[in-house]
Amino acid sequence: MLYAGVDIGGTNIKVALIEIGKGDPKVLSKTSFPFAKAPCDALCENIAISIRQLLFRDGKDIPDLKGIGLTVPGSIDQAGEVLLHAYNMGYHNVPVKAELQKHFPDTHINMINDAKAAALAELKAGAFKGKKNALLLTLGTGLGTGLILDGKVFNGGCNRGSEIGHLPFKYGADHCTCGMDGCMEVYTSATWIARQGRDRLGENFADAKAVKDAAAAGDLVAKEIFDEYTDNLATAIAGLCNVFDPEIVALGGGLSAAGDMLYEPLKKLVAQRNFFKNEYEIVPAKTLNDAGVIGAAISAV
Amino acid sequence: MLYAGVDIGGTNIKVALIEIGKGDPKVLSKTSFPFAKAPCDALCENIAISIRQLLFRDGKDIPDLKGIGLTVPGSIDQAGEVLLHAYNMGYHNVPVKAELQKHFPDTHINMINDAKAAALAELKAGAFKGKKNALLLTLGTGLGTGLILDGKVFNGGCNRGSEIGHLPFKYGADHCTCGMDGCMEVYTSATWIARQGRDRLGENFADAKAVKDAAAAGDLVAKEIFDEYTDNLATAIAGLCNVFDPEIVALGGGLSAAGDMLYEPLKKLVAQRNFFKNEYEIVPAKTLNDAGVIGAAISAV
Repeated sequence: MLYAGVDIGGTNIKVALIEIGKGDPKVLSKTSFPFAKAPCDALCENIAISIRQLLFRDGKDIPDLKGIGLTVPGSIDQAGEVLLHAYNMGYHNVPVKAELQKHFPDTHINMINDAKAAALAELKAGAFKGKKNALLLTLGTGLGTGLILDGKVFNGGCNRGSEIGHLPFKYGADHCTCGMDGCMEVYTSATWIARQGRDRLGENFADAKAVKDAAAAGDLVAKEIFDEYTDNLATAIAGLCNVFDPEIVALGGGLSAAGDMLYEPLKKLVAQRNFFKNEYEIVPAKTLNDAGVIGAAISAV
Repeated sequence: MLYAGVDIGGTNIKVALIEIGKGDPKVLSKTSFPFAKAPCDALCENIAISIRQLLFRDGKDIPDLKGIGLTVPGSIDQAGEVLLHAYNMGYHNVPVKAELQKHFPDTHINMINDAKAAALAELKAGAFKGKKNALLLTLGTGLGTGLILDGKVFNGGCNRGSEIGHLPFKYGADHCTCGMDGCMEVYTSATWIARQGRDRLGENFADAKAVKDAAAAGDLVAKEIFDEYTDNLATAIAGLCNVFDPEIVALGGGLSAAGDMLYEPLKKLVAQRNFFKNEYEIVPAKTLNDAGVIGAAISAV
C-alpha cells in the first residue's frame, strides 16, 4: 500500500512516498525543501506540490495514495486537527491538517508529533522491533521523546501529548523555551553542547558536532563539555528508567552517532544511578534520517 | 468475599479484614502494631497473629480468607516474591511473602508496593473511580507515587516498579536516600518541610504538621517554608502532568488534609506551569488511612 510521509522540521521539510505492507516499510522516493517561516497555507501548498511531483515521477496519482502522515515538532490538540505550539517554528494554533486536506480532499491525513512518529518508526522498523516498552530520546534543538508503553506510542492520558523534555531537571536554573526554568531538555538537548561550545571555546564551536569532534580529537575543554553533557544525559535517562523501566532506550539526532565515547560512559553511569541498579540497554536509533517520514506514514495506516 | 489487607509502614503495621464484592470494599475490622525494626520472621509472625485475632473476633477462620494482600514501602522483584529495597525500613532483599506464607500455607498472598496499593484503593473506592488515567502522590517520609494508565496500576515496563519520586528535580543539590543528589522526593516529601522547620524554626517544628499549623496561624517563617514547599510541589506536579497528562491528581499522606492553603495556590501554579496550560484537577485522596489495607486486599483478588 502506498503512503506519503511528511516530516515538518524547523530546518527542512521532508516528503517521501512509502510502501507499507508485510515486512519493513520501504522509502520509494523522497525530496525535501527548506523551512522558510512561511504562513501555513504556503507551507501546505509546497508540501502538496512535493507529494504530487513524487507521485508523477513514480507514474502514480493521488488516488493511489492510501493516506498521508504528517509530523509536526510540537503539541497537537486532542482531536488531532490543530498544531497548538511549535515553539521552535514560531507556529501557534495552526490548522495544518485542514490546510493540507484542501489539496487532498479525498485522502486520509493523520498528524502526529515528530518524536512520537520516530518512536513508531523504531517500533515497526528499527531498534524497538519486538519490544513492548521502550523510550526514544531525540537529542536535537530540544529533547524529543517518544515513549512506547505496552506496544503503543504513549501520547498522554488525555491525548494532549507526553512532553518528557519538560520535566524539571535543575529546577530554578537555566531558562527553557516553555517558560519554566531548569527543564530536562535545557541540559540534554544538542543545543546545550552548542551553547557551552560557544561560551567556552568560541563561535566556531557553537555546534554540537564541532564540540564532539574536538573532544574526540583530544581538546580538553571540549572533552569537559562532552563529559558534563554525558553526565546530564545519564542522570536524565536513569530518572526516566526509574519511572518507565523500559526494555530498551534508543537515542536519535546527530549526536546519537557519537559511538563508544558516548554510549560506554552513558551505560555505566545509568546502571550506577538508576534505582533498580539495572543495566539498561542503550543504543542508537536505527531509522535515523527517515524516522520522521516513515513514522508519519505508519501513523496514517 | 473476605480478604486480609496488611499495610507495612516504617512506623506502624496495619492489618484489616475487608469484604470485597459488589460496591465499594468494606473494612470489617482492623488493628495495628508498631514497626520495631524486627527481623522479617518476627514481623511476619506478628502479622499472622493479628490476622488470626481479627478472624477469631469475627467468628471466622483461615479457610474463610480468599486471599491476603500485603503492602511494602519499597521495590519488589519482578516475580513479586522479594522485597528488594525499603530504604526507610532498612530492609533489603527480604523474602517477606514466603515468610508470611509459612503461616498461611494454603492462602493466596500478593505483595504490592504501598503507593501502588493506595492508587488501586483510589481507583476502586476513592477519587479515581471512573477514571482511566490518574496520578496519586503520597506526601510522607518520601514521595510515594501510584500511576494509573489506561485503567491499570503502572508498575514499570519490566515490572520492577515506577519510582517517580526518584526523577531528578534539582540535579546535583541535596542528597537522596537512593544515593543520587536532587531527587524529586527530597523536595516534595513531608520530610522536606520537617527538615526546614527544624533548621529555621527549631526542634519543636521538626514535623510537617507543626509547620503547616504555624503557617496557618500566621507565623511568617512557617508560611515561607510552606509556600516554598507548595512551589516545589507545583513544579513537580506540572512536570508530571507534562508527561502523563492525567484526568486527575490526588494527594495522600497527612499534608493532603491541609485544605485551601495548599490546594488553591497549587492548582493555580500547576495551571501556569504545565506545558499544555491545562487546569488540572488536584484533590485530596479519599481512602486516606485505610488506603494501604484496602489496596492490598484488592491486589489479592
